[in-house]
Amino acid sequence: MVRVVIVGQGYVASIFAVGLERIKRGDLGYYGVPLANELPIKVEDIQIVGSYDVDKTKIGLPLYEIVQRYWKGDVPETLQEVFVRKGVHLRSLRNLPIEAVGLEDEMSLRDAIEHLVSEWKELKPDVIVNVPTTEAFVPFEDLEKLEKAIKEDDRDRLTATQVYAYAAAQYAKEVGGAAFVNAIPTLIANDPAFVELAKESNLVIFGDDGATGATPLTADVLAHLAQRNRHVRDIAQFNIGGNTDFLALTDKERNRSKEYTKSSVVEDILGYNAPHFIKPTGFLEPLGDKKFIAMHIEYVSFNGAIDELVITGRINDSPALAGLLVDLVRLGKIAVDRKEFGTVYEVNAFYMKNPGPKEAKNLPRIIAYEKMRQWAGLKPRYL
Amino acid sequence: MVRVVIVGQGYVASIFAVGLERIKRGDLGYYGVPLANELPIKVEDIQIVGSYDVDKTKIGLPLYEIVQRYWKGDVPETLQEVFVRKGVHLRSLRNLPIEAVGLEDEMSLRDAIEHLVSEWKELKPDVIVNVPTTEAFVPFEDLEKLEKAIKEDDRDRLTATQVYAYAAAQYAKEVGGAAFVNAIPTLIANDPAFVELAKESNLVIFGDDGATGATPLTADVLAHLAQRNRHVRDIAQFNIGGNTDFLALTDKERNRSKEYTKSSVVEDILGYNAPHFIKPTGFLEPLGDKKFIAMHIEYVSFNGAIDELVITGRINDSPALAGLLVDLVRLGKIAVDRKEFGTVYEVNAFYMKNPGPKEAKNLPRIIAYEKMRQWAGLKPRYL
Amino acid sequence: MVRVVIVGQGYVASIFAVGLERIKRGDLGYYGVPLANELPIKVEDIQIVGSYDVDKTKIGLPLYEIVQRYWKGDVPETLQEVFVRKGVHLRSLRNLPIEAVGLEDEMSLRDAIEHLVSEWKELKPDVIVNVPTTEAFVPFEDLEKLEKAIKEDDRDRLTATQVYAYAAAQYAKEVGGAAFVNAIPTLIANDPAFVELAKESNLVIFGDDGATGATPLTADVLAHLAQRNRHVRDIAQFNIGGNTDFLALTDKERNRSKEYTKSSVVEDILGYNAPHFIKPTGFLEPLGDKKFIAMHIEYVSFNGAIDELVITGRINDSPALAGLLVDLVRLGKIAVDRKEFGTVYEVNAFYMKNPGPKEAKNLPRIIAYEKMRQWAGLKPRYL
Amino acid sequence: MVRVVIVGQGYVASIFAVGLERIKRGDLGYYGVPLANELPIKVEDIQIVGSYDVDKTKIGLPLYEIVQRYWKGDVPETLQEVFVRKGVHLRSLRNLPIEAVGLEDEMSLRDAIEHLVSEWKELKPDVIVNVPTTEAFVPFEDLEKLEKAIKEDDRDRLTATQVYAYAAAQYAKEVGGAAFVNAIPTLIANDPAFVELAKESNLVIFGDDGATGATPLTADVLAHLAQRNRHVRDIAQFNIGGNTDFLALTDKERNRSKEYTKSSVVEDILGYNAPHFIKPTGFLEPLGDKKFIAMHIEYVSFNGAIDELVITGRINDSPALAGLLVDLVRLGKIAVDRKEFGTVYEVNAFYMKNPGPKEAKNLPRIIAYEKMRQWAGLKPRYL
Repeated sequence: MVRVVIVGQGYVASIFAVGLERIKRGDLGYYGVPLANELPIKVEDIQIVGSYDVDKTKIGLPLYEIVQRYWKGDVPETLQEVFVRKGVHLRSLRNLPIEAVGLEDEMSLRDAIEHLVSEWKELKPDVIVNVPTTEAFVPFEDLEKLEKAIKEDDRDRLTATQVYAYAAAQYAKEVGGAAFVNAIPTLIANDPAFVELAKESNLVIFGDDGATGATPLTADVLAHLAQRNRHVRDIAQFNIGGNTDFLALTDKERNRSKEYTKSSVVEDILGYNAPHFIKPTGFLEPLGDKKFIAMHIEYVSFNGAIDELVITGRINDSPALAGLLVDLVRLGKIAVDRKEFGTVYEVNAFYMKNPGPKEAKNLPRIIAYEKMRQWAGLKPRYL
Repeated sequence: MVRVVIVGQGYVASIFAVGLERIKRGDLGYYGVPLANELPIKVEDIQIVGSYDVDKTKIGLPLYEIVQRYWKGDVPETLQEVFVRKGVHLRSLRNLPIEAVGLEDEMSLRDAIEHLVSEWKELKPDVIVNVPTTEAFVPFEDLEKLEKAIKEDDRDRLTATQVYAYAAAQYAKEVGGAAFVNAIPTLIANDPAFVELAKESNLVIFGDDGATGATPLTADVLAHLAQRNRHVRDIAQFNIGGNTDFLALTDKERNRSKEYTKSSVVEDILGYNAPHFIKPTGFLEPLGDKKFIAMHIEYVSFNGAIDELVITGRINDSPALAGLLVDLVRLGKIAVDRKEFGTVYEVNAFYMKNPGPKEAKNLPRIIAYEKMRQWAGLKPRYL
Repeated sequence: MVRVVIVGQGYVASIFAVGLERIKRGDLGYYGVPLANELPIKVEDIQIVGSYDVDKTKIGLPLYEIVQRYWKGDVPETLQEVFVRKGVHLRSLRNLPIEAVGLEDEMSLRDAIEHLVSEWKELKPDVIVNVPTTEAFVPFEDLEKLEKAIKEDDRDRLTATQVYAYAAAQYAKEVGGAAFVNAIPTLIANDPAFVELAKESNLVIFGDDGATGATPLTADVLAHLAQRNRHVRDIAQFNIGGNTDFLALTDKERNRSKEYTKSSVVEDILGYNAPHFIKPTGFLEPLGDKKFIAMHIEYVSFNGAIDELVITGRINDSPALAGLLVDLVRLGKIAVDRKEFGTVYEVNAFYMKNPGPKEAKNLPRIIAYEKMRQWAGLKPRYL
Repeated sequence: MVRVVIVGQGYVASIFAVGLERIKRGDLGYYGVPLANELPIKVEDIQIVGSYDVDKTKIGLPLYEIVQRYWKGDVPETLQEVFVRKGVHLRSLRNLPIEAVGLEDEMSLRDAIEHLVSEWKELKPDVIVNVPTTEAFVPFEDLEKLEKAIKEDDRDRLTATQVYAYAAAQYAKEVGGAAFVNAIPTLIANDPAFVELAKESNLVIFGDDGATGATPLTADVLAHLAQRNRHVRDIAQFNIGGNTDFLALTDKERNRSKEYTKSSVVEDILGYNAPHFIKPTGFLEPLGDKKFIAMHIEYVSFNGAIDELVITGRINDSPALAGLLVDLVRLGKIAVDRKEFGTVYEVNAFYMKNPGPKEAKNLPRIIAYEKMRQWAGLKPRYL
């Protein structure tokens, strides 16, 4: 059994919830779940025990009602039992057409953290999954500065994710162990302040930014070229989508944080910094959750020949990440059981766009997968 | 030093020759050569000592003149020294607009083999590289049947590649070791008859069918999907080009042999045989050596979502293979020095579309590369 | 009111039937119907009064049951009233996994024609729409030869479409006027024998081969390039699909007839025959009715610069043609009312891949559309 | 004979100059010139008599030297005779890595205009072609305001293009007629102030923004869909390139002016404003002048089916526009000879992204071409 609390009951969390229940009900196989049912902890053992959001129209409602905003099929009745609770927002929905309310509207951040921890001690999650909308943020780097910002109630400095991660550490410390899965770009597993805090507090952090869509594919395509010593001249990559996350990325500041995440892939994999333009590009509402991606790569082959590849695709954004979460919550529980507190590169390298810790590099995902299996105690698939 | 004899002085062999000499001259880096200059045997150590063809208009001419048919740049003068000799054709140019002449027009196949062996004993190649046009063929499977066909001068049963590989074995036996690199689809490393013969004769075989273009990329993209447990519904892949190899593939029989090669990738990588249409599709003269590829893949992600990828590209066909040959001749020499006679899966798995021996499977190329490096005594790149 | 008889109750005819009824029911707008509801005859005025097929499992069933094989949504009850009757097959389903039965199994072709005419005199269609699977055929060119083949019951020479068109002419002669819409590649509007027969018999023929998918788009893209005097170097076009029509095209002979149809577009539009490879390429069952197309065009721009365009798409094959039929049956009735017997180039030039009569050329579709509107008595849209 | 003065001796103007001379020399056909040599004024009759720029490193040099920065082939010696003169910049190179100098550094705008006019009276151009880098601008709308800005030397209000167009009007007035071809996005043919001025001054204006690349193709593809009543759900279009114009577009303000130009195409052609994201997206230096474009269109077909088209391409940016200029200067002379002062929609509708006058709409280019031919006194090609 893995008990899960969700932070950010949006598209991804809703598809995660509905997909899990459909699997339990026997409607679906394990497609989109990288480790399928190979782990000792089964998919069917995952239980969502709590959910948090700051959208005024969601708080207090059962997941059963929320997920219908994102999924048009038959929703399992089991989702009647979990109700959305109020979290903290700290401007995370700024500029979006959503009315945000948060615990911090009524109390200090310290009290909000205490409130969360006390709720969690009741809900008893093994894993807290952080999937709110992309935030604008600045990493702390230094644990003392983080502690100070909390103490001083510094609402301009802290983001919601940073506060949740801090609360998760307090909770883990009190209960002897828990995991925090950070699926968004805010640096947590890449912020030495949080990794230090996690080690002190029996917290496992996985992060940052779930590796869906074009980025992990780019990593593998670039590795493919690098292994043939084809010299990449330039890479252009576009993404355009119609879900709230794309809407949020039209906000300049937020977009910048995303960009930071993705660009290191090129140098990590190729060994040199090929000129590239890799950015989430725009919001186009009718595309909905099914984003359009386009990528152009130009490279030099033997005898100076110049080749070109173009990759385009239509990819369902939220299911891609939701499928990864099904593994991550189980691996989080395994890491807690093994007491591997801090962050786990072997897991992050496969599942995350920006695998922590800070100094860690991107690997070709095909190789990262094999190493992750070995970490998880499974036989490699191809190695 | 690696002494190389080429069989089939067409587009690939000419780009190989010109690229090598340009590297020696300092005009080019090692782009397109997977192992660049990391091996103990340097790129600059490779020397082409002989060349064979059956095109009447090529025999007797220096490489210097031949390569100008394929390469419009400045041709190194060093290619003045090697002259094209007459090989065997055995209908391999049938239906192509080329007048073929061969040793077998004047003598029995046995005598032709003896003739080749005696020339090679003079030229002293370490490695014989087989890159003629794709042939229609039937594998032997049984060494006795192969021996019998040679003895009985069975010109309907044998292809040119099979005769060259047989001659290479005779040569290797006499001189104590040599390598035969089969870069075309005819099964040699996948034919147990030839692998058995090679083991008995101090021959190293690498094969079959150099892994250029869309197939190895498909392998890696499919591995990428398999590792996320995305269920592939269908794969369509087209290739169209304007060089002689594409012209040859418009011949029904030849096309069939190519098709055989490629289709196993899908099942080897995915673990199930997803419906697919993967075929060299057509000949379009103005495309020249720069083929157009298009691939469509449809797969099921989490919660039943259906995604699509489309990959298109313009790829210079001959340089892609020529760059691999720069490694293969050096690895061939290394294998001979180590007396690893028969065939070497670790090499084939990365460089070949249809890696021998017969029972061997396709691996994701990104993993095959790391294993090949380890075989070659190099540090893995990402592993 | 337009009374319609359908020949070939497959995918296209079923989508035509269900789409029409859904429009009448108010479920759908006029999307996919080029002239929407601009004609004096309204979409709601179209009535399917009869249907013919030769698939043993379809004959005798109501359309209501047949269309459920192709359309998974809610089927209008109105389709309970029309039952599929037995037609003629003449080997048209050869090599397909369908058991064919036809009138000609029990009687001579002459009698079968008489049988059809007498049924039609009862059903009173204004328009007969021919949409069976692509056939292998040879045009007649000479009316006497056609008459002779009918008289002599020459089942090897005649195809089902040719027999239906002949029967339509007999019917039109007897009732004073009717239209025959040939939506498949068999040459009817391009066969002078049939055009002559039509003129003598009060028959309007529209044909040949409904212009869906990539061909009309190619026509417009080529016109776009021609108008800028960009010199097209080569064109490659692939289609792959999973419906019965694609399965039929894997039959060599049938494929050839399709190829004939499409290739003239290039020369008609560009004014020179640019090298091209334009073929329906393959069958891939899971694609179903939603075909994948890919097109590559390379051209020379000013100062010798070389540009490239690649177009890929996922296109629902049957709805594309079904939408055109909604116009064609109404235009057929208009032509009959105007007594424009024979064939009507203005209509064919927009709606058909191979617009008859024989000597007629392809136009850019964007221009053909405007001329067709003028013929139909509508104001041009952009002209 | 057409005498031409160029404003902005960058990539486009250099390819225009070199291509023209190569045609005269017999090296090239008329590819990329829409009207080829069909006009009474021949391509060989065009003569470049003057050139202006504000890049300090260009002023005073012969075209022969400038064009070598953009064209690596053999440059015709005839370009030795024209020297680049100093123009006005008015911040047009702001934020670009170019040192700008202009007449206005030494004198008032009035005096600069007088200076230009007096030089032109000596050079005697029939046509002035404006092809500098994209500027940030605000249209005037009202001729009095324009006159006032000139009089008051309002350097913050005026752009270089506006000053050149004003000078062209003064010149035309004095010599009895001239043409001004505005190939960049600044509104001139769409600014009623300039059209009024042109009518008063014997000036012909063609503009605005030469229709190269993806926009005119989008217009024709959308017309293709509109004529089939396929309902466009969304359009995403990306452009990325490596020439100075793309670099300039990374400047926020300039980018906005480009965006304004392009977006009206969708509504003009479809008749409704389908959701779209159509923007020049980024700068990627190694792409050079050969931009990468990607476009995704999703539409509804008959019976509610949803289809998708994806168009990608590699397009040489400058030759595309340079080829249009070869026509535009000849058509400009024809319009002057006919005294059609003001602006000419028939010409603009085909050649311009934003065809003036202000209230004019975009047409499908395939139709605009035919109307333009008729205006030019040529037989339509397909109509």
